[in-house]
Amino acid sequence: MKRKGILVVVSGFSGAGKGTLMKQLVKSYDTYALSVSMTTRNPRSGETDGKEYFFVSKDTFEKEIARGGLVEYAQYCGNYYGTPKEYVEKQLEHGKDVILEIEIQGALKIKEKFPSALLLFVTPPSVKELKRRLSGRGTETEDVINARLARAGEEAEGIEKYDYLVINDDLDTCVAQMHALIQGAHNAPLRNEEFIETIRTQLKELAKGEN
Amino acid sequence: MKRKGILVVVSGFSGAGKGTLMKQLVKSYDTYALSVSMTTRNPRSGETDGKEYFFVSKDTFEKEIARGGLVEYAQYCGNYYGTPKEYVEKQLEHGKDVILEIEIQGALKIKEKFPSALLLFVTPPSVKELKRRLSGRGTETEDVINARLARAGEEAEGIEKYDYLVINDDLDTCVAQMHALIQGAHNAPLRNEEFIETIRTQLKELAKGEN
Repeated sequence: MKRKGILVVVSGFSGAGKGTLMKQLVKSYDTYALSVSMTTRNPRSGETDGKEYFFVSKDTFEKEIARGGLVEYAQYCGNYYGTPKEYVEKQLEHGKDVILEIEIQGALKIKEKFPSALLLFVTPPSVKELKRRLSGRGTETEDVINARLARAGEEAEGIEKYDYLVINDDLDTCVAQMHALIQGAHNAPLRNEEFIETIRTQLKELAKGEN
Repeated sequence: MKRKGILVVVSGFSGAGKGTLMKQLVKSYDTYALSVSMTTRNPRSGETDGKEYFFVSKDTFEKEIARGGLVEYAQYCGNYYGTPKEYVEKQLEHGKDVILEIEIQGALKIKEKFPSALLLFVTPPSVKELKRRLSGRGTETEDVINARLARAGEEAEGIEKYDYLVINDDLDTCVAQMHALIQGAHNAPLRNEEFIETIRTQLKELAKGEN
């Protein structure tokens, strides 16, 4: 039986280390593919089309929306951001687990469309550590840090909607744990409908044959 | 924060290898404790009180029922079988994951009483293999084998109620997988209510202090 990939949605507090975790995960195991988002914002210096984002015009983006080509999309600061459906579905068909970073509203939209998506919420081991990491970047003003902590407070209200918490203390431990969680998720009944159906059919056939 | 144990309920087709799996799991990792059932049936030769079962009189068993001392119980062939609550709760408090083998009706009763119990369903990789294992024991008549296959057909109807399928192909692989699934389950939000509550409270306090 061919194993289909899982769409893995990663959310979590700003400063939780999602980006590093995801990069390390994809580097450490060959079963993963990172989803690349589509956006109408201009590329920053060093960004490559198809790597950080697919950079498209507003017109192209809206055509994508119209033809149902996006798993989800949202607008921030006058720009569109979205997840192209075709790439995700192709990778899943090939058995790759596709990793997608997105905030909670987007994550819940995805869970609606893909009930077998796996939702992971990344958090530092404590709020103290979260604050330390946000401050430690040294590139943000106190206002920005406080805004992020306030946003973290809102996001924390939705944690129960996620399948698993990933507590990011040590990077390597955390990557191994994320891998175990995603691979374990392949064993959930809703991701094995074909296998279960086969077992049931065969047991019924056997019962008929024997009686 | 002290980690509480998980009550792990293992069900599965007769012949799926549950017993061997559970023994190997407990032997391989020191985080597990096997739950010992209480019964009114007589000990067989070689069975020790407190090891295979707690052997008690009908009177004692019924007193246990009356005082709510059992997680669940059932009657088979005129004898009572049940799961003593105290032992399970003590082990869980000590952080041990307690493994309990029980058929589907019992498993669902346990899930009702302990919503954070983890339900695992063990199955051979195929029905052909299931039949081979049942016949391979060489100790059962064809009637008994057919009765077990019929029973498997009934049990197969309930697989979706379980959290995870465990496909028992190779013993060592399967034990490692079971371990990963149980340890991963510790990361589910419903098993981290205290941690989530702490994070929320601290974020709120921080927001108050800053504003």
